[in-house]
Amino acid sequence: MVTRPRVLSGMRPTGALHLGHYHGALKNWVRLQDEHDCFFFVADWHALTTHYQERDVIERNVYDMVVDWLAAGVDPKRATLFIQSRLPEHAELFTLLAMGTPLSWLERVPSYKHQITTQPNRNLATYGFLGYPLLQAADILIYRANFVPVGEDQAAHVEVTREVARRFNHLYGRGQAEPILPEPAALFTDTSKLPGLDGEKMSKSAENTIEMREEPEAVANKIRRMPTDPQRVRRSDAGDPSRCPVWPFHQLYSPSDVQQWVQQGCRSAGIGCLDCKQPVIEAIQREQEPWRERAETYLANPKQVHWIVEMGTERARTIARQTMKDVREAVGLAY
Amino acid sequence: MVTRPRVLSGMRPTGALHLGHYHGALKNWVRLQDEHDCFFFVADWHALTTHYQERDVIERNVYDMVVDWLAAGVDPKRATLFIQSRLPEHAELFTLLAMGTPLSWLERVPSYKHQITTQPNRNLATYGFLGYPLLQAADILIYRANFVPVGEDQAAHVEVTREVARRFNHLYGRGQAEPILPEPAALFTDTSKLPGLDGEKMSKSAENTIEMREEPEAVANKIRRMPTDPQRVRRSDAGDPSRCPVWPFHQLYSPSDVQQWVQQGCRSAGIGCLDCKQPVIEAIQREQEPWRERAETYLANPKQVHWIVEMGTERARTIARQTMKDVREAVGLAY
Ligand code: SF4
Ligand code: SF4
Repeated sequence: MVTRPRVLSGMRPTGALHLGHYHGALKNWVRLQDEHDCFFFVADWHALTTHYQERDVIERNVYDMVVDWLAAGVDPKRATLFIQSRLPEHAELFTLLAMGTPLSWLERVPSYKHQITTQPNRNLATYGFLGYPLLQAADILIYRANFVPVGEDQAAHVEVTREVARRFNHLYGRGQAEPILPEPAALFTDTSKLPGLDGEKMSKSAENTIEMREEPEAVANKIRRMPTDPQRVRRSDAGDPSRCPVWPFHQLYSPSDVQQWVQQGCRSAGIGCLDCKQPVIEAIQREQEPWRERAETYLANPKQVHWIVEMGTERARTIARQTMKDVREAVGLAY
Repeated sequence: MVTRPRVLSGMRPTGALHLGHYHGALKNWVRLQDEHDCFFFVADWHALTTHYQERDVIERNVYDMVVDWLAAGVDPKRATLFIQSRLPEHAELFTLLAMGTPLSWLERVPSYKHQITTQPNRNLATYGFLGYPLLQAADILIYRANFVPVGEDQAAHVEVTREVARRFNHLYGRGQAEPILPEPAALFTDTSKLPGLDGEKMSKSAENTIEMREEPEAVANKIRRMPTDPQRVRRSDAGDPSRCPVWPFHQLYSPSDVQQWVQQGCRSAGIGCLDCKQPVIEAIQREQEPWRERAETYLANPKQVHWIVEMGTERARTIARQTMKDVREAVGLAY
């Protein structure tokens, strides 16, 4: 039996998934499962680091998100799906790693510095928030993952994970050939950023999203109401796609001949904006069809979804426990 | 059945226990078990916060310390003895509490500020060391302890624990009458500080200790070699007990008539220093006798010690699990 390299990735259950999540992460997960042993988890403790006051948000969204994963094509026969908070082993490793991790390693992580400086009044300066990258390190190292798929802004987190593993192996490895906690590599993958309906970052709080399982008619309406090039006031004005929030949707969804039709028709006022939007509407509806079909099956069998998560969590637990056994032995707490 | 108030206290396994430990903490533990439901634990994760590079120290000393507890008279039939690292639930609660705990609460704990400023090169500025009072809070709150015996320098830690509990109950309590995590009270008890053989704080690293199970002859030799009032150079010089490291031993071990004999004899050069030390030697040897007897039984049956810890750990686990069930439900992670 050939062991496939292990990939670990998690997602915070912060709301129903939208097209930005799909193109930015999920699509990649679906691709990765062909050649990797994938562990995908609901990062619900992480959700508490920034949403610790919003109890219901987390509770409501966990299984909804898992349905979105399955709808997108994540295959529970090949990937292991589980819930972070069901595995206290993550917290145990986090606690142990905390003892040897200099504060400075965490303070210099860009996402920490960024959030603290840009949102000073959201009370983010908690001990847990500072430790976010360390909890992530525990999430990754406990499965001895080979790869962690990362977007550009998460590379620093994998770097911390590697440093933490290196230090642990150095302190407790005692010259063993096999590291106790292998260093994972960042897997830079080809993902796409899809901006929101208003051209800004797609996010629930900005109310500029299309949800993965949005109804076809709602999708059509949202796209039709999208703002376009602000300088194209009348049908007869020529426009410029580079100023238009619809254009990134064409870049992602339209073949090159349609893209050419847009460029020419917009710049010459040869097409109207509603004409221009129609292929996008159809492409999104086409993309969503299989998602909705799969989701229907799962929504009709909520027990099946629970069972999938249950099986995944038990598989994850077996591995996490073995790692913790080795870790406890290494640090000298195996009595 | 009357439930006795619950007391929680832990000790770091940093070496064989000495008389300073006994008079500063253990003696009090023994007293507390008469009227309290006592939970005493080996704080081995805490030992890693400052001794994370000394794997063997921890491993070697855990059971040795438990034997010292039992030798001192801790009664496993009344008290629950257990090992922190065997209960990942502590780490889970620590992780959850971390999410809502402002960094500033931890940064202002005096022991943190003190150690960071006085030992800047011991690499103590780790994430785990900063979180020490929070891990302690989890240790306490997970057993819903009513009281925590504290020395003067630990009152701030109990204060953090109370703040953390208050915030948790406020965020997640939803107006329930019973708090999810009751606030423990500090129990200021009558303990004695016994300085070391050189008059400084008794500590292993200062090599000025008398171990609890030190051999009688070794005790006699150590006391005989103790420095005395530096101004009493010759037998015929008068001395002053207030300048002499032997005096605090008399204060703790000698009845008032002996203390008077010392004061008078010293100041008048009526007694020699070896005469003066003899009652201390005898008092310590007398105190140690029952310890050594009890210890012998346990050392002859190491399995019994393991079994005591095993039973205690399982009892602790039952309670810790129930608390975590309630906590998970409260924060919305009970799916
Ligand atoms: S024609 Fe298309 S690209 Fe041009 S402004 Fe209208 S929607 Fe935007
Ligand atoms: S007589 Fe006793 S108290 Fe006085 S200096 Fe000697 S040892 Fe100390």
